[in-house]
Amino acid sequence: MAVPELAPLKESKVDVVIVGAGPAGYMAALWFARMGIKAKFIDKRSTKIFTGQADGLQPRVLEVFETFGFVDRAIKEVAVGYEACFYEPDDEGKIRLVDKQPEGVPGISRFNGSVIHQGRIETWISDAIEEFSKGELQVERPLLPEAMEVDTSVGDSTTEYPVKMVLKKLPDNDAGPDQFGHKVENGLYRQFDGDQKYEVPKEGEDLEVVHAKYVLGCDGAHSWVRKQLGIEHKGETTDFVWGVLDIVPITDFPNIRKRCSIHSKNDGSIMVIPRENGLVRLYIQLREVDHEGDKLSEVTGKKRVDRSKLTAEQILATAQKIFYPFSLEVAETHWFTAYQIGQRVATDFQKDNRVFIAGDACHTHSPKAGQGMNVSMMDTFNLAWKIGYVVKGLADPSILHTYELERHAVADDLIAYDLQLSRLFSSKPGEISTEEFRSVIEKGGAFTTGCTVNYDASVLIDKPADRPRTEPYYSALASNLAIGMRLPDTRIVMQSDGRPWWFNQRLPSTGEFRLLVFIGDYINNPSLKKQMADIGEFLARPESNVAQLRRDAVLQPMLVHASPQAEVTWDDFPAVFRPRDERGVMDYWSVLADTPTLHEKTGDAYEKYGISREVGAAIVLRPDGYVAKVAEPTLEGIEDIWRFLGGFLTAVKATT
Amino acid sequence: MAVPELAPLKESKVDVVIVGAGPAGYMAALWFARMGIKAKFIDKRSTKIFTGQADGLQPRVLEVFETFGFVDRAIKEVAVGYEACFYEPDDEGKIRLVDKQPEGVPGISRFNGSVIHQGRIETWISDAIEEFSKGELQVERPLLPEAMEVDTSVGDSTTEYPVKMVLKKLPDNDAGPDQFGHKVENGLYRQFDGDQKYEVPKEGEDLEVVHAKYVLGCDGAHSWVRKQLGIEHKGETTDFVWGVLDIVPITDFPNIRKRCSIHSKNDGSIMVIPRENGLVRLYIQLREVDHEGDKLSEVTGKKRVDRSKLTAEQILATAQKIFYPFSLEVAETHWFTAYQIGQRVATDFQKDNRVFIAGDACHTHSPKAGQGMNVSMMDTFNLAWKIGYVVKGLADPSILHTYELERHAVADDLIAYDLQLSRLFSSKPGEISTEEFRSVIEKGGAFTTGCTVNYDASVLIDKPADRPRTEPYYSALASNLAIGMRLPDTRIVMQSDGRPWWFNQRLPSTGEFRLLVFIGDYINNPSLKKQMADIGEFLARPESNVAQLRRDAVLQPMLVHASPQAEVTWDDFPAVFRPRDERGVMDYWSVLADTPTLHEKTGDAYEKYGISREVGAAIVLRPDGYVAKVAEPTLEGIEDIWRFLGGFLTAVKATT
Ligand SMILES: Cc1cc2nc3c(=O)[nH]c(=O)nc-3n(C[C@H](O)[C@H](O)[C@H](O)COP(=O)(O)OP(=O)(O)OC[C@H]3O[C@@H](n4cnc5c(N)ncnc54)[C@H](O)[C@@H]3O)c2cc1C
Ligand SMILES: Cc1cc2nc3c(=O)[nH]c(=O)nc-3n(C[C@H](O)[C@H](O)[C@H](O)COP(=O)(O)OP(=O)(O)OC[C@H]3O[C@@H](n4cnc5c(N)ncnc54)[C@H](O)[C@@H]3O)c2cc1C
Repeated sequence: MAVPELAPLKESKVDVVIVGAGPAGYMAALWFARMGIKAKFIDKRSTKIFTGQADGLQPRVLEVFETFGFVDRAIKEVAVGYEACFYEPDDEGKIRLVDKQPEGVPGISRFNGSVIHQGRIETWISDAIEEFSKGELQVERPLLPEAMEVDTSVGDSTTEYPVKMVLKKLPDNDAGPDQFGHKVENGLYRQFDGDQKYEVPKEGEDLEVVHAKYVLGCDGAHSWVRKQLGIEHKGETTDFVWGVLDIVPITDFPNIRKRCSIHSKNDGSIMVIPRENGLVRLYIQLREVDHEGDKLSEVTGKKRVDRSKLTAEQILATAQKIFYPFSLEVAETHWFTAYQIGQRVATDFQKDNRVFIAGDACHTHSPKAGQGMNVSMMDTFNLAWKIGYVVKGLADPSILHTYELERHAVADDLIAYDLQLSRLFSSKPGEISTEEFRSVIEKGGAFTTGCTVNYDASVLIDKPADRPRTEPYYSALASNLAIGMRLPDTRIVMQSDGRPWWFNQRLPSTGEFRLLVFIGDYINNPSLKKQMADIGEFLARPESNVAQLRRDAVLQPMLVHASPQAEVTWDDFPAVFRPRDERGVMDYWSVLADTPTLHEKTGDAYEKYGISREVGAAIVLRPDGYVAKVAEPTLEGIEDIWRFLGGFLTAVKATT
Repeated sequence: MAVPELAPLKESKVDVVIVGAGPAGYMAALWFARMGIKAKFIDKRSTKIFTGQADGLQPRVLEVFETFGFVDRAIKEVAVGYEACFYEPDDEGKIRLVDKQPEGVPGISRFNGSVIHQGRIETWISDAIEEFSKGELQVERPLLPEAMEVDTSVGDSTTEYPVKMVLKKLPDNDAGPDQFGHKVENGLYRQFDGDQKYEVPKEGEDLEVVHAKYVLGCDGAHSWVRKQLGIEHKGETTDFVWGVLDIVPITDFPNIRKRCSIHSKNDGSIMVIPRENGLVRLYIQLREVDHEGDKLSEVTGKKRVDRSKLTAEQILATAQKIFYPFSLEVAETHWFTAYQIGQRVATDFQKDNRVFIAGDACHTHSPKAGQGMNVSMMDTFNLAWKIGYVVKGLADPSILHTYELERHAVADDLIAYDLQLSRLFSSKPGEISTEEFRSVIEKGGAFTTGCTVNYDASVLIDKPADRPRTEPYYSALASNLAIGMRLPDTRIVMQSDGRPWWFNQRLPSTGEFRLLVFIGDYINNPSLKKQMADIGEFLARPESNVAQLRRDAVLQPMLVHASPQAEVTWDDFPAVFRPRDERGVMDYWSVLADTPTLHEKTGDAYEKYGISREVGAAIVLRPDGYVAKVAEPTLEGIEDIWRFLGGFLTAVKATT
């Protein structure tokens, strides 16, 4: 991967290069825009996606969207899955409703699994990037990386720019998606995107050189970055071919606006996903496809179906058979595609913690569980703030190790679930019982919400290292707050103005860690009052460096009390929780109350989190909202937390 | 008001001219944009407002914003009032907290009274106008009406363009707000806006002529339109002068983020309104003002304080005295003004139901109850859809009479409340007891939410004519749904996909009337099932004209059932509630359920509305969300409703 000598080219220096503007790339760019990191963001295609592609948004991703301030846009536009219907064939081969279940896991999140086409989702993120970066950070297209070279001699230096990339500007018309002769937009090209041949950059091409501290390969299933790193993408492609249709249906099928799993007698199965604006997505198992143009698979050596020959009409014809006795016609076709099921995971997610891959570059699988886009976004939601910290010199580069640790595990779980699911869906009737089918989907339900992700012990997650990630680990101080999992949401009251909020709304993704001191009912527990004062004093010591941590947007100390409002006064709270800025203007937004309000039912956050009002707890939340540590709300507890933070935060380490 | 002869000018024809782009004008334009009405929208100022001015948003206005799709923007930006604190002086003259109350009326609406500066509010509305009208409808500025002439010979014709106006384009620099020498933006100019002298349009000026069917004067307190109509603006201006400061405060006052009414011993009183972005608005009673430049009031003949001489510093100095013993300094001053309390109402709100006035043009009063902007917007929210119907030939012009009937009453109530409130605030300590003070504010609380407005009987409101509007009138069929009042919100479930919604979200301001057939538990009440079929048949008859009413966006029939979901199937519902479009695509969004869902507590809408599940009710909702009529959910009931609608809807009248 050496970069050849070329005549002097346009050169630039950036903190990070993001290769690929799909969901993973956009989410990375969002963090960088939010944190003010200088990034170059490139994509080889000349336009963004307009329709089709992925469409599922997990509850967890919606929670994350909320922390970036645009979940309301989502909520207004999406279709939400509330009910799942199961259809089986009767003896005459007519499908009939056999069961109804709640879709998703009631109560696990304020949001329910939602759907809308990927283009809209990318637009919301892209608008937020524009807003945060004031228009500075934008996708440059069509721009293709042609060579990459890493100077490993710098070790883990965070000040050097050891990655050199040569980028080629493509002519616009080379970079548009090929519709394979179809009039309707489709995803066929995506499947045949194929591998980018390694081309040696040549004089006369429209080239530029960029020097970066880090590179993020978000360039999808056929990742060029992954190949440059020589990372393997392990797994199998099966022979099952599925069609996808995004249509406005004309039908007498009564549950067309609910998520349905339909098994027919002889014609395969269908998943029905009602979508935004009257659209419905159908995932259709294709048993009979045109094998004429079969090619040999490069991977398996087996014959591969030439999916580019498939038409929307053929896919619809199969769907119509499965729907029998219900009618199914089409008023509009918005998008279609066909894919072959396969499951693959990259052996490594990074090289030297200098060049990273994320999203489909790391893991590919069937789209049926609606996970790819979500997991891809959550990959970079996990990674990019860490890079931001390192690039700014705020944290030790060792935190970068946690990316692979945390996200490889999720990818493994995802692939395992997808294998199960694909087997179910591709099974012949009778092969698998309806009960087994439902039970897999129900068990998978929690996983697919994205809310059960549980990160292992590391420099960023303080818990015993031997816990399997299937078993959430709780401290006795907060018996419902699993360490390594995201903070569940709750109603909470702003002390200064009495306004109730969802806690998640007060924990925006700013890049800050949060120290949440649940000080309990300090009015009725004098020892807690003393502890609050002690903690206040500790944090006010110059050696604690809180002023700088605040200035650098590294740590926001917050207090959550549970004392009766009638007895509480604003001056009770240590100054560090209501600091004044250089002008003397007070911060009114860091003291919260878990108390009933005059307007609505609030006051059960302690209970929800399993925190005692007599004992309290001190919680460290990571910038991505995962619980990093739980300690006592005492001087010792905070000292312990300071030791933990000193393990990676430069400004804390310097003083401890 | 005759228009002089001029050399041929640029001429145009529009349905409506809106004079004045303040809150009233914007809300009118929003309806016109939504309904596709051709309007000319002019303002004499060269720019919109950027800061300051009105800041209070009632719950009812937020509900209305939701029906136009942008309440989420508000919710994210506003400060919300949840608690009200009352301060009184002690013997030493130190103010101290004597009481805390919920701010607003808990439970009356999903929204609580909120604050943000008027410029933002106008931006949201203006963005929505742009979206609905696809950029067609925009404020033209600076444009001043110079003459207006109405040809009354056309009677109430809705096809002629009997109003002729001459408009003059102003040079940009003449039309900017004068800051009266202050560096800080302020509202002083607004107070001194004064009367526009009647100028005869002259050759050589940049003039144009516009012919309109209707004119809406939304041109504020000094309304030129009102004067053209010769309408009196009756009332009094008092001698009390108040200052307004929008500041980022530096203070040790502990409740600065709550709404506070503060009475000092000798220095007058203050209202504290915490605002967006750390701002706080103070309304400060000014006892000592510079009387040097006193002028004689044109109205009262008394001396008027020259408020243009006031500075932010003077106002602050008074505030500091009232705050004693708390400190009050200022980090940023965003805006300030001073005003003299006065209460005035126009004798008429229209002339010949051809030219209308709305907003401050009709009523002015003190800003302390935070009502002016709200009531102004609600004036045109009431009026503009009616004009839309008439202009499109969808309704009889007689419905225009209801504007003055309905909104004059609100103006009267508003002025009465404001007089009370102003007297309280301007009273000397001791003159009025704290108890009396609080009791007025508490009683006024419901009024100021905007949710208790109760429209009188008319062609649009079917109830006994002799009911005083202070007494809500209920039908026995819906014992909690007052006829003439807005439909209170509730959770409701979409039958087709099981998604729970707030009812208000499913009743967007599209211009449609809604026929809500609460058919009850039709599964367990065979007679209801029969009634549902009968109603379905009635509405399906060609003579009922439902297809056309739908096409013209005049009526949306909706069904709300209360039968157990396990037994309900989609095919139970008459086709008219789930019609197919010309392509055969079904409408899945007009059948609702008041049933528990698998995800959250729903199913109490019938109870909330006082409708029996065994009897049901049929409700007509106006396009503005007010209950127009309640009838039985029977063939007779619907026939009765058809007679009612035939009283003003062209398409119904034609067939009844
Ligand atoms: C039919 C279908 C349905 C799906 N449904 C869902 C769903 O419901 N929910 C869900 O979560 N996921 C779903 N997925 C999966 C989802 O689309 C992917 O997992 C997701 O897009 C991966 O995001 P990414 O950013 O990693 O990669 P991609 O979205 O593939 O983006 C990669 C980007 O990199 C660019 N690129 C590639 N190579 C280069 C290069 N060399 N140089 C520069 N740029 C490059 C590409 O142009 C592209 O813009 C579905 C996928 C399909 C096909
Ligand atoms: C300090 C202060 C605080 C207030 N606080 C609140 C509050 O909290 N809540 C609340 O609801 N209300 C409040 N109000 C009142 C509120 O500002 C007004 O009631 C509201 O703006 C009236 O709206 P309007 O559209 O009727 O008139 P305006 O807002 O006055 O708008 C009239 C528009 O017409 C234009 N115009 C005038 N004459 C002509 C002409 N001849 N030709 C063309 N254009 C013309 C003007 O330029 C202006 O843009 C407050 C007012 C003040 C001063």
